[in-house]
Parts: sequence; structure tokens; C-alpha cells
Amino acid sequence: MASVQDITVGAAVNILSAVVFLVAFAILRLQPFNDRVYFPKWYLKGIRGSPTRSGAFVSKFINLDCRTYLKFLNWMPAALRMPELELIDHAGLDSAVYIRIYLLGLKIFVPITALAFLILVPVNWTGQTLETIKDITFTNIDKLSISNVPPGSKRFWAHLVMAYVFTFWTCYVLYKEYKIVTNMRLRFLASENRRPDQFSVLVRNVPADPDESVSEHVEHFFCVNHPDHYLTHQIVYNANKLAKLVEKKKSLQNWLIYYQNKYERKPDKKPTTKTGFWGLWGKRVDAIDYYTAEIEKLSKQEAAERESVISDPKAIVPAAFVSFKTRWGAAVCAQTQQTSNPTIWLTEWAPEPRDVYWSNLAIPYVALTIRRLLMAVGLFFLTFFFMIPIAFVQTLANIEGIEKVLPFLKPLIDVKVVKSFIQGFLPGIALKIFLILLPTILMTMSKIEGFTSLSTLERRSAGKYHLFLLVNVFLGSIGVGTAFQQMDTFLNQSPTEIPKTVGMSIPMKATFFITYIMVDGWAGIAAEIVRLVPLVMFHLKNTFLVKTDRDREEAMDPGSLNFYTSEPRIQLYFLLGLVYSVVTPILLPFIIVFFAFSFMVFRHQIINVYDQKYESGATFWPDVHRRIIIGLIISQLLLMGLMSTKGAKQSTLVLIALPILTFWFHRFCKGRFESVFVKYPLQDAMVKDTLERATEPQLNLKAYLQDAYIHPVFKGGEFERPAAIDEEENNPLVATRRSSQRGSKHVTSGENSDVGV
Amino acid sequence: MASVQDITVGAAVNILSAVVFLVAFAILRLQPFNDRVYFPKWYLKGIRGSPTRSGAFVSKFINLDCRTYLKFLNWMPAALRMPELELIDHAGLDSAVYIRIYLLGLKIFVPITALAFLILVPVNWTGQTLETIKDITFTNIDKLSISNVPPGSKRFWAHLVMAYVFTFWTCYVLYKEYKIVTNMRLRFLASENRRPDQFSVLVRNVPADPDESVSEHVEHFFCVNHPDHYLTHQIVYNANKLAKLVEKKKSLQNWLIYYQNKYERKPDKKPTTKTGFWGLWGKRVDAIDYYTAEIEKLSKQEAAERESVISDPKAIVPAAFVSFKTRWGAAVCAQTQQTSNPTIWLTEWAPEPRDVYWSNLAIPYVALTIRRLLMAVGLFFLTFFFMIPIAFVQTLANIEGIEKVLPFLKPLIDVKVVKSFIQGFLPGIALKIFLILLPTILMTMSKIEGFTSLSTLERRSAGKYHLFLLVNVFLGSIGVGTAFQQMDTFLNQSPTEIPKTVGMSIPMKATFFITYIMVDGWAGIAAEIVRLVPLVMFHLKNTFLVKTDRDREEAMDPGSLNFYTSEPRIQLYFLLGLVYSVVTPILLPFIIVFFAFSFMVFRHQIINVYDQKYESGATFWPDVHRRIIIGLIISQLLLMGLMSTKGAKQSTLVLIALPILTFWFHRFCKGRFESVFVKYPLQDAMVKDTLERATEPQLNLKAYLQDAYIHPVFKGGEFERPAAIDEEENNPLVATRRSSQRGSKHVTSGENSDVGV
Repeated sequence: MASVQDITVGAAVNILSAVVFLVAFAILRLQPFNDRVYFPKWYLKGIRGSPTRSGAFVSKFINLDCRTYLKFLNWMPAALRMPELELIDHAGLDSAVYIRIYLLGLKIFVPITALAFLILVPVNWTGQTLETIKDITFTNIDKLSISNVPPGSKRFWAHLVMAYVFTFWTCYVLYKEYKIVTNMRLRFLASENRRPDQFSVLVRNVPADPDESVSEHVEHFFCVNHPDHYLTHQIVYNANKLAKLVEKKKSLQNWLIYYQNKYERKPDKKPTTKTGFWGLWGKRVDAIDYYTAEIEKLSKQEAAERESVISDPKAIVPAAFVSFKTRWGAAVCAQTQQTSNPTIWLTEWAPEPRDVYWSNLAIPYVALTIRRLLMAVGLFFLTFFFMIPIAFVQTLANIEGIEKVLPFLKPLIDVKVVKSFIQGFLPGIALKIFLILLPTILMTMSKIEGFTSLSTLERRSAGKYHLFLLVNVFLGSIGVGTAFQQMDTFLNQSPTEIPKTVGMSIPMKATFFITYIMVDGWAGIAAEIVRLVPLVMFHLKNTFLVKTDRDREEAMDPGSLNFYTSEPRIQLYFLLGLVYSVVTPILLPFIIVFFAFSFMVFRHQIINVYDQKYESGATFWPDVHRRIIIGLIISQLLLMGLMSTKGAKQSTLVLIALPILTFWFHRFCKGRFESVFVKYPLQDAMVKDTLERATEPQLNLKAYLQDAYIHPVFKGGEFERPAAIDEEENNPLVATRRSSQRGSKHVTSGENSDVGV
Repeated sequence: MASVQDITVGAAVNILSAVVFLVAFAILRLQPFNDRVYFPKWYLKGIRGSPTRSGAFVSKFINLDCRTYLKFLNWMPAALRMPELELIDHAGLDSAVYIRIYLLGLKIFVPITALAFLILVPVNWTGQTLETIKDITFTNIDKLSISNVPPGSKRFWAHLVMAYVFTFWTCYVLYKEYKIVTNMRLRFLASENRRPDQFSVLVRNVPADPDESVSEHVEHFFCVNHPDHYLTHQIVYNANKLAKLVEKKKSLQNWLIYYQNKYERKPDKKPTTKTGFWGLWGKRVDAIDYYTAEIEKLSKQEAAERESVISDPKAIVPAAFVSFKTRWGAAVCAQTQQTSNPTIWLTEWAPEPRDVYWSNLAIPYVALTIRRLLMAVGLFFLTFFFMIPIAFVQTLANIEGIEKVLPFLKPLIDVKVVKSFIQGFLPGIALKIFLILLPTILMTMSKIEGFTSLSTLERRSAGKYHLFLLVNVFLGSIGVGTAFQQMDTFLNQSPTEIPKTVGMSIPMKATFFITYIMVDGWAGIAAEIVRLVPLVMFHLKNTFLVKTDRDREEAMDPGSLNFYTSEPRIQLYFLLGLVYSVVTPILLPFIIVFFAFSFMVFRHQIINVYDQKYESGATFWPDVHRRIIIGLIISQLLLMGLMSTKGAKQSTLVLIALPILTFWFHRFCKGRFESVFVKYPLQDAMVKDTLERATEPQLNLKAYLQDAYIHPVFKGGEFERPAAIDEEENNPLVATRRSSQRGSKHVTSGENSDVGV
């Protein structure tokens, strides 16, 4: 077990690195040539131009004004200054609600910490158990934890009562927050401008019809079953290959520009390249000629592919975006079942056009269920067999373990500073490296599962990542770390004894988690604000590719909040805080520092840096809520396990009501709030419809919606929209065109008796 | 442990009692005076009149034709003769699908039994383990079970492979059956006549409005939010007190008739009664005068109450049945969310008028969630603490236990016949008595939970009962029974060791369950067909109350399939069959006999006796399917537990895929079929609407729906319908009346711009 001194060294190292990052940030952000790295959001909004062109040449790149350096922490109050409503307007509801998660952490843990230090710490400190037991090494940190209370003591009543108080407080804050977020979302939806997704429904699994094309089939179906509301629809092309070609062409064009720039700078020497992989081998040729030719070749391929996508009926996937005359009609269609076979004509609320994940729109039902099964099994293996490397890394945390395995390192390790460094820093950072690899794998798995919007993909990946962190970082660190120490005991015990041992080892792992919080939570967040990778990338691009201001605009990489990687990590802190709030309250201040610091950093990033790829209106909140509840229940169960080994078996009876009440609270909140995040109520739709009809009676909705859901590769290029749609528009074969050609008027059609079934 | 001889005695006793019941039935049903007891369904259908009035007086009551007695088992083929489509027409889809559960049991278990006897029985029989172990008593039945295979033997591969084969076969049959039932339901819904529930939606939690009555509020809300589809609505009165008065009056009237009949038969003596409780004490008075006066008093009370219900606005509950112009409109409203607050304006498909459970329509959301929490806790206690009496009863199964507790009974018990009788018969019957008490309690709990239709109440009670049977009868009989025998071992073991012990004791409990099947399944079903209680009740009523043919009609008690008591019991047989199919195949023939016999008996009862109170269109099938899946997964888990104690630990790895695949299969079926039982697809609604519009363009739907959802106490009485509704109809204050007064035309209203929000 690490001593107080180890913790102090760890804290020092991490605080030092955090301060280094912050100072680096403070200096770098003031340099005008970094302006686009640290304030891209303002450029994208068009509020901020390129750095002031007046003044000396040098001051265009480096800030020489010393006074600004003195106020290098100025960004912190600045980040907190923007009021929330303005923030929603500036960065979207997703971002504004996202940073409320950190705020929620503060709201939960500040009062809990205060109470725990007032009541539990004195109770533990005066427990005087650890001194009396021999053959055990303990530290002052352990003396502050529940381990210091003698088994069967009456003092445990304090812990039991506090467990109840903490649970009720957490639930109360969660309820209030759910209510606030719900109202924010409702206000946001009500105040939103007209958006195509308000009128549209994504229809999947359109059944094959031998006599009709997908487009005709969709049109007929909705003309018959939603006669008064159907307006138009857009079919979906399988343009995945085309998208790849476009991507490739863009990269070649970048190389071409690079060589052209090089040539301009040194006109005496024509740049050359090799034809092989990444220009590393093969024949040496003239680079500009080579890339021009390659681009031309690709352009031809692209044109051919474009042609084939548009003309080939097989390139049309059995899915469509169906638009309705009113939001009411769309809300009805999205929420109802269309046919008696629930695996065809699946309708769901259309995602925002930017939010659509185009590759997944064509997966049939059976394939979908099999994919989900395979991914569930895959996730299981990933989650449970990833533990083996983690277990190895964890051995580093145990210095005696290393000395046994690698005895020749003993003299080195015995140096005090090295020992403290290893124990305070290494286990956290090694774990961190493992975790960096993971989110991409999980995102790929979610994509295979077939979700159709980026927001859903992110939410599902976050769910998987959360499970992983729970099993591997939390339980793994407790269980496997202990397993290494107690391998003998474990092998001779029945496997069912493990939970008890896990519960028992919780207090012992407090120091490990404190170092983890410092590395991941403190230094990690400070590293986030420096944006090292985008900084380097921007300057590379700026040097080699940028010619015009537009290029510079494109070279910016504002990035975005990666919900699927960052949210589950926050959940880990909630879990740690809840688990240790009763057991080892000394851990809580570290968590509070994490939440406060993150809140500031991410508020700054949201205001100045990130540019969200889509806006989902905080649909992720139910997930956040649910995971905190899961953490709460885990903390209660572990407390029960711990208590039962503490000679306080009857306390299990006292605690049993907690998880039940917590679960009931979850159900209650789910029923009360969740549907706001899932469904679009008819009343709200009707209000917006009526308002719009009154203010814009002449609106041509059909024209507005026509191109809303075009695959991005068709957007803006040489082709304004695929020709097939125009063709089909004038297709005399489409029989029930009538009602949709009347279309743009808002009046309902008056008689439906002319609709055949 | 019971020996083969005990089983034989048990089988003999039970078969004997079954035969006695069958013979009694065969004789009783042929007597004309019992005709209304055994064929009430035909009377209710109006096909069968009172027994033939021609012929001798005696033959009106007793069947003297000896030939008919010879063919006393004739009802069996007769019951099987009616084709399924006719059966659906005759008895409804609920009943027809219900008996398919028995058929499903046969489809699953007949091939499994054949395979098990071909492969597993020889493998077990030649295992030769039990002979080699000393200090153990075993029977020939145990020699047929898995206990006879030596630990770690390669023979277990046969069991593992068979576990897979049985699972796949069960899933295959379940899938086919789900598909068949789904199609039956779809055909049934499509061919149904016009019914009020097709056009109606039950709206609950109408929020209070200071300016409007509930009725006005409902009307305004739906006029605004469903402007083209809203037709009319019916408010719900809290007539629970009135219903009680009506009930009481009816009982008093019965007494009056009884005394009048008595007086007519013996005009010399005026009948008297006592005024106290049940006429047992108090002042002696003239009975006819007393009851006439009482009825008059009650009539006045009833009239006053009727008046107050209709005029008092507080008697109107915040719920309503809202009807739409088309089935499409109703389907839309039932499936969508109305407002952003999902706890008000809750819409759901209206139950059939007969199916409405009126008392539960007025419970607010928070009260509902609290009630559900309380009932969940209540169910937990009921389920887990009911075990104590069961444990006591189970001790009877252990004859040595009795001898120890009550040594003075030893001489009696040692008589061979008595011993066999106790072991073969008592444990089953004692358990049975416990179970009779239970369903009513569970139904009351479901009522407290606040479900609004009888069909839902039955389904929810069935779920509770299933849990109870699972924990108490199945696990309790295995666990607690063993606990009594192995109390010492248990106390000295950690509680986590219990699952293993449970797995180990499964084969040992096979004989207990065989007796249980014989008592509950064989004799119990045979008792069902005799209908002892309705027989006695009918003759009592017939003697004392019946004066006219109409009275006799009312004296009939056809009863109905009690889904909530009988379905969970069938599930127990599925569970037993699945668990023992691999472990002790000898149990399977007993289960097959149960399924075959029950199928015949219930088919007969459905055709001739039962009169269903409502028709839900087989909405219970997803529950049936899910519970069989639960049984399957339990059987797989227990097999894994059993195998791990058999020195075949690696087999756990082989078996682990089974529950995962089974669970996936459940999810697949749920996605594929369940929504047919929950939602009304728009396409089907549209087809029926269009058809109706074409065939009956002049239909006055509003008149048709006007009185459909009137509380039964208001129906048919002196009040045709509460006056308040008429009043309100002409109320000039209701502003948006327009659209609903246009009402009965089917055309949609043409413009909605006049609808305020």
C-alpha cells in the first residue's frame, strides 16, 4: 500500500504537470499565430478574422505585450462569465448540457464531502483498530477510512445513516437536474427554427416489390396510409464507394497543392515523388504531373461511379426520408407502427441531416439482430479478456511484486524517489494508455450494430465504454489487483467467495484511485486545454498546404466534445465518489477538484474551440442519469458486502432498502422525464404548426425539404442533386402523385375517398 | 426418498380419483337436470333450450336411457371434433389460443421424450454408479437419472448434446407457434365486426383546469390536437359506491324472492327472519315485510346516490373515453404522446367495454408509482416469506422427519400402506391447499397497482403467480426440502454454497415432482370437469330462488378460463419438463399425460361450459412465450450447476452459449412478433376504415359510440344514460363544439386554420 508520502509525491508530480500544461496554454494562446488553434469557434462563427494585420510583422506571430502574460489565468473567469442562455445559443444545447454534468458532480459531492468530513472522518480516526492489529502495514490514509473501525462496533451506525443521507441527497440533486435539463430541452425545441428533421421521418426496411421501384413503393404506401399528411420523400443512394473516391481525390489534391507550393517557393527545382506507397519507393516521377494525372483519373472514375449510383436501381437502398406537410403528421408517423409486420416499414424520427450515418441505412431486420448478438458477445470478450494485460500493469502498482518478479531491479527501486515515483505515477499512466486505444474499437462495434445516426452511435459507444470502465478499471483494479496479492487465498477458495473479498479490498485501493484521479483527472484535463495534437497539425498544414484564407479555414480542426469517450470517464468519477463517500471520504476532495477544474476547462473549450458536428438537443441525458444511478446502486451493494465482512451482518438488513428505493427512483424519473428525450409530443408539434401557418402562410415547404436529405457527396458538387430525382418527378407512371403535388398548401385534402388501398 | 412402490401407490390413488371424477362427470352430465351446469355455453348462445319438455316427468330430471351410459367417454372425441376456426367463432380467440398452450406442450415434449428415452435413459441406466456407493438409498427411478453416471465420465457428453438438441427444438416449436398465433390474431382482428374499442382511446390523468370541467377540457384538448379526427368522448363517473348499493340491493332482492317462494309453498306459515348479521340474531320479524322495507330504503339511497353522481362535478374522474371518426385516428392517438409532460393526458388503446376495470381509472401518476413500489415490496415478502409454511409442509414428505418430530405416530406410519399413502399423496395435496388461497391475493395486489382493464389485471396477476410458483413450488421444494434434510451442512456452509446444493438436489426431487404432477395435473384436471362447486350452487339457487326461465338463466354460472390462475400452473409443467428432460427423463411421460388430458378437458369446457367475460384477442401470448423462455433458461442454468458438481467443470464452458442464444432468440421473437399484440398498425386501421366507408357510407358513428363506454350501473336501468351528458350536449358554453357536431360525416374537416391553440 502506498503511504501518505507516495501520495504527496504523486500529487506533486501531477500538479506540476498540470501547472506546466496550464502555463504552456497561457503562453501559447496569447500568440497570434496560434489564434486559430485556440479560438477556432469564433472564426467559424465569422466573428473573429485573421490576426490584426496592422503593426509590426513580428507581432502578427508573437505577442510581445508583457502585460498580457501577467494575467495568464484570465481565461478562467472569462470561461465562467458567459450566461447559460447565451452559451446555448453560441454552442448548442448538447454542449451546454454536457458541462452541466460537471456541475452536477459538484452539486452532489460538495455537500457530501462536507458531511463526510464533519461526521465520518472523526468517527473513523478515533476507531483505533489498525494500531491494535499486528502484521499489517497501514498509513494515515487508512486511519481515516472505515478500516479503522473495529468489527461489530456501534460506530457503523454512523456509516449506515450517512449511506442513507448520501443516497437521498444524490437522488434529490439528480431529480432536480433531470427536471432542469428536461425544461431546457423543451424550451430549446420550442424556440428552434424550422428544420427539415421536424417534418421528416426515416423509413427503413422498405419491403421489395416486384412491380414498383423503392421510390414508387414508398410514395404509394404513404399516400395510402397518411393521405392527409404525406408531402414528399427522398430515397437513399448507396454512395459509400463514391464517398470513398471523393475522399481519396481530396487527399491527392492536398498533395498536389503541397508540391505546387514547394515549386513556387523553389522554382529552380521541380519537385519529384515516388509512385509507390506513401511516396516511399517505386519509380521517381515529376510530382506535379503525377498528381495532376492521378486526380484526372480519379475524377473520371468518380463521374462514372456517380452516373452508376444514380442510374442503377440496385444502388437505391430500401430506406427513405419521408417528409410530411406538418410537424404533427411527422410526429404521428414516427411514433406509430405502420404494418402488422413490425420488421418492415420501420419509421423513426429522422435525425438531423448532419447527424445521419449514411452507411447503415440498408440493414435488414434479421441481419440487424444477428449483428447485435455478435457484437454483444464481442463486447463480452473484449470487456472480460482485456483484463489480462490490465492485470499485468496492475502488478506495477505493487512494488514488492516487481521486486519478486525482477529481483535485479531491486537496488534501483529501493531508491526512495524512484519508488515513490513508480507507485504514485506509473499505474495510472499505463492504464491510461490502454484506454486511449479503446473508444475507436467500441465506436466501430456500434457502427457494425447498425445505428443510423451519429448521436445514437456516440450514445451506444458510450454505453459500451462505460461497461468496460466499470468492469476493468473499477472492478478490475479492485479485484485483479487484490488477486495478485492474494492469489493463494483465491485458488484455495470457492469462486463464490470472491465478492466478499472484493468488498473487503475497497478501502485498501483508495490510494490507487487517488493517484488515478490525479493523473487522469487533473493532468489529463490540463493536457486537454493545450490541444497539442491540433496545434502541431495546424502548423504543419499551415506551412505546407495553406495558400488562401479559405485553406486556412479548412486547416483548422476545432474538434468536438467526444461524448462517447469523455462521458463514461466522468461516470467513473461519479462511481468512485459514491463508493468511497462512506468508506474513505479522503478521496472526495480529489474528485471535487476534478469536477471544478473540468467544468472550467470544458466551458472554455466549448466557448472558444469545439464545433459540434450535430445537435441532438441533449438526448444523452437519460443515459447520464441512468449511469449515475447504476453507480449509486453499485456503491450500495459494495457497502453491503463490506459491512458483512465487518461483523455487522444485521446492517445488510438496514441497507437492503437502499438499492430498492434507488431503483424505484430510477423508474419514477424514467416515467416522468424520459419520453421528452425520445418522442415529439403532438401538442408541441401542433403549436409550432399553427404558429407557422399564421406567420408564413405562403411557405413552400416542399421546396424547402427537397434537398434536405441528400447524401453529402451529392451536395454542393458539380451535381446539384442526382438527376434521377428530377426524372422521377416527371415520371408519368407514378399514379398517386396528385395529393403530393397539391402539396405545398397546408389545408388537408378534404376528401380521402379517392385513395385506393 | 420415495421408492418405485410409493410412486406406484401414488399413481394408483391419483388415477383412481381421476377415474372417479370422470365417471361422476359422465353420469352427471347425462342427467337433464344438470344440463345447465355442464352445457351453459349453449344456453347462453341460445342454441339449447331447457331440457325437452316432452316425455315422462322423471325423464326431465334423470336420464333413463341406459345406452347413453355405455358411451360415457364419448365427450372426449366430441371435444376434439370441432375445427379450430369454428372454435374461434364459438368461444373467441382467447379461449382457442389458450388451449393451444397445451398443444404447444405436447409439440415440445413428445419428441423430447422420445429422444430422451432412446438416448439418455440407456446412458443413465448403464452408468452403474449408485450400486457402487455405500451409505446411500436409491431406487430404480434414480438409476434412470443422471445420478447414476459416474463423476467425470465421458457419458456426460450425451447429456450436453441433448441439452443443445432440446433447446433448439423448443425454440423452433416456440417460434412456429408464435408465428401461428400472430397470424391468428391478425386474421381475427381483420375479420372482427365494428366494435367501439376500435374507435376509442382511454385518456387518463386529465389535468385539472380551474376554468373548465373535465369534459370541456377533454373536448378542447382533442379538438385542438386531433382536429381532423376527434369525434366525441365519454366522461367517467366515480360510481363505485353506487355499484355497491346496486349489488347490495340485488342480494336483498334474492332473499325476498327466497322468502316469497317459501311462503308460496307453505302458505300456512309466514316466514320470519332476524334483523342481525346473516339473520343469525337480533329481533325476529316478518321476513317478506322486512326485506320489502329494506329494498325500498335502499332504492331511495340508490336514487339519491345516482343523482349525486350525475350532478356532483367531484364524481367525475379525470379520465375519459375519447372516440375518433376513424380507426386510423384512434390508432394514432393511442400510440402517440400528447404533451411534453408524459404523466398527463396519457392515452392508451381503450379496452373492450366489457373489459374495463372501472375503479382504477382515476389514479394519478405519483400515486401509481408509489402503489407499484409498495406492491413490488409486498410481492417480495409474500413470495419469500410464504416459504416458511411450505417448508413445514414439505417435512411431511420426509417420513423419517415425522417420526422424529412425533415419535408416537411411528407404529401407525410403519404400516406399509399408510406410509406409501403419506409419501405418495400428502405432500402434493397440502401444497395444493396453500396455492388455492393465493390467486385472489395476487389479483387484489394487481388491482391496487392500478391497471385499467380486466385482461391486463389477469396478465399481471399471472406474472406474479408465476414468480410465486417458481420460487416457492419449484425452487422452494428443491431448496427447502433439501434444507430440512441437510440442515447441519447448510448452517456450517457459507450461504453462497447454496446454489450448488440446489443443483445437486434436483435429481433427488424427481419423485416428489412426479407425485405433484399426478395430484395437481391428473386428479386436479379431472376434478375441474366435474364442476362440483357450480353444480351445488346451481341446484341450491334452482331450488330456492328460481321462478322464471330468466331466473334460471341467471342461476347458471358458466365460469370462465381463469387465465391468472391456470396459465402459471401450466408454466410449472413446462419448467419441470425442461429441467428434468436431461436430468431425469422418466418424469416426461407424466407431463405428456398431463398436457394431453388437459387439452381434452379444457377443449370440452371451452366448447360447452365457459363463457369468457371479455375478448382480448390473445394478448397474453407474449407472456406465455416469455415464461417458457424463462423456464428454458432456468433449466440450462441448473444443468450447468449440476454438471459443475459432477466433476465435469469444463462442461460449463460448453453450456454457457445456451442461455445466451436462448436470450437472443427471445429478443428476436419479441422484435418480430410482440408489437402485433400491443399496437394497432395504421395500415390495418386504414384498410378497415376504407372498407367501411365504401360499404356503409351513411353510418352514424357518433350514435353508435354514444353509449358504448357507460359505467355498467348506468346501463339498462331506469336511467338510460346520465342526464349530465345530455345537458352538456346542449351547453352553449362549449366553444369548439363545431367540429364534433359536423361529426358524423366521414370527410375530414377541410381547414384547420380556425383551431386556436
